[in-house]
Amino acid sequence: MDVSRYAEFYRQKLLEDVLPFWARHSPDRKCGGYFTCLDRRGEIFDTDKFMWLQGRQVWTLAKMHRHARQDPAYLELAGLGAEFIRDHGFDKDGHVYFALERSGKPYANPCIFSDCFCAMGLAEYAAAAGAEWARELALRTYRGIQRWLQTKPDPYSRLVPGARPMESMVFDMINVNLSLELDSTIDQPVFRQRGIESLEKILRLFVDRKEGLVFEHVAPDGGHPDTFTGRLVTPGHALECLWFLIHAGRAWERDDAVATAVAAIPDMLEFGWDEEYGGFFYFMDARGKPPEQLEWDRKLWWVHAEALVALLEAFRCTGREEFAAWYEKVHAYTWEHFHDAEFGEWFGYLDRGGRAFLDLKGGKWKGCFHVPRCLWLCAEMLSDLA
Amino acid sequence: MDVSRYAEFYRQKLLEDVLPFWARHSPDRKCGGYFTCLDRRGEIFDTDKFMWLQGRQVWTLAKMHRHARQDPAYLELAGLGAEFIRDHGFDKDGHVYFALERSGKPYANPCIFSDCFCAMGLAEYAAAAGAEWARELALRTYRGIQRWLQTKPDPYSRLVPGARPMESMVFDMINVNLSLELDSTIDQPVFRQRGIESLEKILRLFVDRKEGLVFEHVAPDGGHPDTFTGRLVTPGHALECLWFLIHAGRAWERDDAVATAVAAIPDMLEFGWDEEYGGFFYFMDARGKPPEQLEWDRKLWWVHAEALVALLEAFRCTGREEFAAWYEKVHAYTWEHFHDAEFGEWFGYLDRGGRAFLDLKGGKWKGCFHVPRCLWLCAEMLSDLA
Repeated sequence: MDVSRYAEFYRQKLLEDVLPFWARHSPDRKCGGYFTCLDRRGEIFDTDKFMWLQGRQVWTLAKMHRHARQDPAYLELAGLGAEFIRDHGFDKDGHVYFALERSGKPYANPCIFSDCFCAMGLAEYAAAAGAEWARELALRTYRGIQRWLQTKPDPYSRLVPGARPMESMVFDMINVNLSLELDSTIDQPVFRQRGIESLEKILRLFVDRKEGLVFEHVAPDGGHPDTFTGRLVTPGHALECLWFLIHAGRAWERDDAVATAVAAIPDMLEFGWDEEYGGFFYFMDARGKPPEQLEWDRKLWWVHAEALVALLEAFRCTGREEFAAWYEKVHAYTWEHFHDAEFGEWFGYLDRGGRAFLDLKGGKWKGCFHVPRCLWLCAEMLSDLA
Repeated sequence: MDVSRYAEFYRQKLLEDVLPFWARHSPDRKCGGYFTCLDRRGEIFDTDKFMWLQGRQVWTLAKMHRHARQDPAYLELAGLGAEFIRDHGFDKDGHVYFALERSGKPYANPCIFSDCFCAMGLAEYAAAAGAEWARELALRTYRGIQRWLQTKPDPYSRLVPGARPMESMVFDMINVNLSLELDSTIDQPVFRQRGIESLEKILRLFVDRKEGLVFEHVAPDGGHPDTFTGRLVTPGHALECLWFLIHAGRAWERDDAVATAVAAIPDMLEFGWDEEYGGFFYFMDARGKPPEQLEWDRKLWWVHAEALVALLEAFRCTGREEFAAWYEKVHAYTWEHFHDAEFGEWFGYLDRGGRAFLDLKGGKWKGCFHVPRCLWLCAEMLSDLA
């Protein structure tokens, strides 16, 4: 594998293709924050502000300013989002709305992931801009998240109280990532403590070494009820979670987490890959039964971005040739199918055969995050390897 | 169009293919009710009882017993579901749970559509079996639905109170169908009154004659906000709603409803049809922007079943050749792609190209309802035309 050539390719795509797309099309200079519903050409097709994506874009821009290319334009643009979050994002309890109208008027109620990504964005912006207010706000939001995670109150759950209790990986997964991010910019012991609690829970419950699978939901004892929920495997989530474990294990000196994650990656790659058309499936059933999700076989951008990161981490940890071969296979599929050579950035959503079925670069769920994060992390790792 | 040959075909598929599939594979003789998660061969892959589908199957079996073939096995099987609904389906406020575990233990909280389909099933069963208890229970459930419809309280809404208020067609659409069904078996003036209120609301708000589209959601004044929600068009829902309007208009002497529906059908057919691969799209954007739903371009069984019914109704009302031609086109697509010649019944979910991407005959949303109702109604109309 020609790591130098790959490193240059990822760096060039990050700085000359993907970041410019967002810098050119997403800023809302009138109301603040970013437009994320951008069609193939970058034209705006919806003006609501989805707060996960606002926080994620602040994080990306501030991070790139600090680590990829120091550019006052990135920092200024990160501030546009950070101030919009500060001025409009929070409800009276300190949680972040899921969506606002363009102007900042609340539209959809808070959701814990909005809190998480806005806390990450604010912390990174604080570090990049030396903005004390952003640091304080990130810390306050983090504390609110930790309180929420103690009991995970969900006023929107349709389940009868007590019905078949299940644990979901997504909360501990994001908490590992969030805690690690804040631990890297704010000096407080709470991040490592809480992060390790979540890391241990993932190792104990969700990574099933015997089955060679990472489960999305398990019974409180780690069992796998024979239901839609109990059988669900999400290859993209699994691979993303596994590289979170590698990063956290390295930072917090938990070699067991690194070892478990590296061992689980090959099984998830094999399980999730579509042998017929290439690409990773979105949702799968651990027992091969029909999945509940009508989009189960579609190929999503973020799944492939996270797989690339997981693969390079595994390669870097082990030096094993199989990871390099997998990396080149996923790289080839990804750049052939997701990248838009004409207008830049990646298409988000491909059908099973690899054709884009939505003509967009951003929407309610896709923003300026997975692609640039992947490009940056891959470029860093590849340079390291070179 | 050889209507006699078509009539015989639909009747044969109803009585010798589709109903036998459900009679053979779905009864739960141990706990009552029906299994609906059935794979291609009819094998059970999940045992929860989804209450919409329980009510719908009771309705189908009782209706077929009364109108298609008087068969004590149908009636007995309808009773198996009706008694399960009576014994386990209702919460303390008289609403029907969305899902129960196999045993009847509550799993997911009530949902108004569970109420609607269980009321329809119980009313039809009451008529078929002369079961007074079922008649009473249907009536009580209907009253609860009408109370709910006055304000549509939704404890699960994630929207900030007062945010961009919208009206949704689905509630009035189901209320027309439900009220008409109960009006045909129970002698009370309330059904016609409430049904006509919903019919008038659909004509006033959702059928946009100028645009030639039926909108899924509109502003309270009938306007079309330029948002994901405001732009949503669902061709299957639209066509189903339009034939509900034709039936209701005929029964309740509202020629305006019949005329409006018949006039709207050709526009919805043209708008919803996939010229490239055939079949009707699932979700569409009225302005051609990227839809929010990741399954927007997939081809669903019920959409095509409802289109066939709408087409024959329009043909019967007008005698216009264009409807016969459309009918034969949709018939050809449907039977070539959805029907499973090997194991019977229809696949539920095809990708855009027409390949089944879920190997199932029933699940959480597909049961014994749209296909047999379509086959029965088409056979009746075709015999009529012959």
